Amino acid sequence: MADLKDVAVIGVGATKFGENFDWGVDDMLTMACFEAMEDAKIEPEKLEAGWIGIQYPFTGFSGATLSDAIKTYDIPITHTENYCVSGLDAFRNACLAVASEQFDMVIACGVEKITDQGGRGLPTAGFGHPVQMSGLTAPSAFGLAFPRHALAFGTTKEHLAHVAVKNHFNGAVNPKAHFRREVTLEQVMKAPIISGPLGLLDCCPISDGSAAAIITRTDIAKKYRDDYVTIKGMGFAAYTNLMMYDKNFDYLAWRPTVKAAEKAYAMAGITDPPNEVDLAECHDCFTITEILNVEDLGFCKKGDGGPATAEGRFNIDGQVAINPSGGLKCFGHPIGATGVRMVYEVTKQLQGRADGRQREGAKVGMAHNLGGLGGVVCGVVILTNEK
Amino acid sequence: MADLKDVAVIGVGATKFGENFDWGVDDMLTMACFEAMEDAKIEPEKLEAGWIGIQYPFTGFSGATLSDAIKTYDIPITHTENYCVSGLDAFRNACLAVASEQFDMVIACGVEKITDQGGRGLPTAGFGHPVQMSGLTAPSAFGLAFPRHALAFGTTKEHLAHVAVKNHFNGAVNPKAHFRREVTLEQVMKAPIISGPLGLLDCCPISDGSAAAIITRTDIAKKYRDDYVTIKGMGFAAYTNLMMYDKNFDYLAWRPTVKAAEKAYAMAGITDPPNEVDLAECHDCFTITEILNVEDLGFCKKGDGGPATAEGRFNIDGQVAINPSGGLKCFGHPIGATGVRMVYEVTKQLQGRADGRQREGAKVGMAHNLGGLGGVVCGVVILTNEK
Repeated sequence: MADLKDVAVIGVGATKFGENFDWGVDDMLTMACFEAMEDAKIEPEKLEAGWIGIQYPFTGFSGATLSDAIKTYDIPITHTENYCVSGLDAFRNACLAVASEQFDMVIACGVEKITDQGGRGLPTAGFGHPVQMSGLTAPSAFGLAFPRHALAFGTTKEHLAHVAVKNHFNGAVNPKAHFRREVTLEQVMKAPIISGPLGLLDCCPISDGSAAAIITRTDIAKKYRDDYVTIKGMGFAAYTNLMMYDKNFDYLAWRPTVKAAEKAYAMAGITDPPNEVDLAECHDCFTITEILNVEDLGFCKKGDGGPATAEGRFNIDGQVAINPSGGLKCFGHPIGATGVRMVYEVTKQLQGRADGRQREGAKVGMAHNLGGLGGVVCGVVILTNEK
Repeated sequence: MADLKDVAVIGVGATKFGENFDWGVDDMLTMACFEAMEDAKIEPEKLEAGWIGIQYPFTGFSGATLSDAIKTYDIPITHTENYCVSGLDAFRNACLAVASEQFDMVIACGVEKITDQGGRGLPTAGFGHPVQMSGLTAPSAFGLAFPRHALAFGTTKEHLAHVAVKNHFNGAVNPKAHFRREVTLEQVMKAPIISGPLGLLDCCPISDGSAAAIITRTDIAKKYRDDYVTIKGMGFAAYTNLMMYDKNFDYLAWRPTVKAAEKAYAMAGITDPPNEVDLAECHDCFTITEILNVEDLGFCKKGDGGPATAEGRFNIDGQVAINPSGGLKCFGHPIGATGVRMVYEVTKQLQGRADGRQREGAKVGMAHNLGGLGGVVCGVVILTNEK
C-alpha cells in the first residue's frame, strides 16, 4: 500500500486573513484554491476529490460550498467540522484517502467568514451545549488555565506577553497576516482586560480567510516539483466536550495535544522534539494556550513554557521557531481555515519560500491545531522536505 | 495496498427511529454504537478511530460528540456534515481510512436529534443561503420535480402514492421503524397537501435516531465472523448548492445520483443494475425523489419509475427490492443517521438477518443517499456477501 509517509503536498495557497468585508466565502475559496493549484501547476480538472473544513453554519453547510466556489462538480467533497481543528481534519482525511490510493490528486481546504456575523463567532463556541452556552466564552475558558499554571510553576502575565510580542514580531512582515505590526511588552501588559488575566493582546482575533493544499503521492509529486514536502508524522485525538468540567483536567496540560503529539512523534520516529523539529505552527488562540502547548508538545519541560519563551528559545532563530507565520495571534484565526493555513506556512518554510520570516535550514515542521473549549480535539501533522 | 474492496463491515447497530423524546444524543449514540460493537463482538478499546455524521448544530458540533457518548477518548474522530449524506460520508471516509491501512478497526456512525427542535429541522435545510432561506422548504423544492416529470413521461400522483404504499408495507414489520403501519393508495392520495402535488404521506417524517457500523479489513473480519460483508462499489458526487436555480437542471434527474452511481457501478463491474443488484436502500425523502432516483440508478428506464413501482417491480420480491427497510418514508429520517442506517439495513439483508422483511437470496445491496435541496450531494455504496 501507499504509506502515509508517501503522501505529499505539492501546492499551497491562502488569502490574506482579516476583516475581509469585501470578500464572500466563494471569493476566498477561489483565491486560496486557485493559488494552491497554480502553485502545484495543475488545473481544477486534475482534482479527483476534495475535503473542506468549515466550523460555522453561516459559512457553509456541505461539500458543495467548495464545488460552487471553484466549479469542481461531480467529484466527492467531504465537509469536516471539528471545532478549530476543522481545517486540519480536512487535510488529514484527504491524506488518508490519498494513502488508500483511491485518488491520485486531491484538494484540502478550509474557510470561515466570521466578521460579518458580529459577535456570533466565538460566543457560540459552546452553541447547543447546556453549560457552555451560558456565558463561558473562549477567553474565559482558556484564561482559567493561567492561575493554576502560575501557582504550579510561577508563570507570570509577563511570560504570556512574550508570546504575543514574539508572534507579532514574526507576523508583522507577513503580507497575509491579519495584523501587520509589532507590539511591545508594555502594550500587551497594559491592554484592556478581556477575561481574567487575558488582555486584548493576549487574544487572537476573529478573522475571515481561506487556505488550501494540493495533495498527491510522492511518485506523482516528483513529476510536478522537486521541493514537494511529505508527511513524516500524524496524530489526532478527541477528548471530551466537557473538558472544562472534567475531574481529571488539572489546567496544566491540554490532554488532546499530549495524545496527538505522542502518536505523531511515534510515527515520525522523533524522540527529542526540540532538537528534531525546526519549526511549529502551534495553536495560540490565547497566549496561555501556546505556553501549555509548547510544553505538551515536548519543546520544553512542563512548566518552562513561560521562561523559555521569554528567553527567546522559540524565536524564529531560537531552538524551535514557534509560529514563524505570526500564529493565530497575529496571522488571524478564521476557524475552519486555520489548520490548512498552518500546512500552508509549514510547506512554505520547508521550501525556503517564507520571505522575510524564513527559518534557516528548516527540514522538519509541525502543524499543531487545537479545538474546543479547554482543548477538546487536537491534530498534529509533521511535514518534512527530506526525501 | 488494501483495496477498497478489502474493506469489510463486521457489525451494525441502530436505535428505533422516531420521536424519541426520552432519549438524548448521547443515549442514542450509545445504543447504536454498542449494538454495533456487540454485533461485531468487539469492545470499545478495539476502536482506533471514528467518524460521525451529524447535520445540525443543535445535535452536535465535533467528533467529541461521539467520544462523550461511548467514551472512546484519545482516538481521532472526524465529524462529517454533508446535508442528508452526512452519515454515508462518515462511512465513506472510514472505509478510505481502513483501506489506507492506518487503522485496523474503526467505527462510523450518525445521529440526529431533531424533534425537540420543533420545526427548526427541515426549514433550515437552506439555512444561511440567501435564496433558499427565504421560504423554499424541502417539500417545495423536491415537489417541483413532479410537474416536469408528469409532462415528460405521464407520471401521476397515483404513481407517487405507490411508492408510499410499498415503503410502508415493508416498514410496517420493522420494529425500529418510525411508523409501523401500512397505508393504502386511497389514504396517500387523499392526505392533506403539504406542497404542490406532495401530500402528507408523500413526505418522510422528521425523526430522531442513530446508527453505527464497525469497519475493518477482510483479513481481520474473518477472525470475527463468516458473514461479514464487503465493499463492492462506491461513488460520491457533489454538485451545486444552487441546483434548484441551475440552468442545466431539467427536474428530470438528480445529477449527483447519476454521477455517484456511474462511479460505484464502474468499480463494482455492474453493467445491468436491475439484474445485478438485489436490493437498494434508496433516498426517498419524498415519493417523487424515489421515482427519479430509481431511474437515475438505472433500475428502470428514464420515465418508467412510476409505472415500474406501480407494477410491483420494486417490491421486496420484485426485480429489485427498493427500500426493504421502509426507507426514509416509513423508517424515518434523522438526517445524519440515515446513511449509516442504510448500511445497517443492507448489511442485515446480505446476512439474511432482516426478520420479516428479508429479500430472499440477496447477494448485492446498495445504499443510496441524496442530500441538499434538489439533490446537491450523493453517495452510493454497494455491498456484497460474495467472497
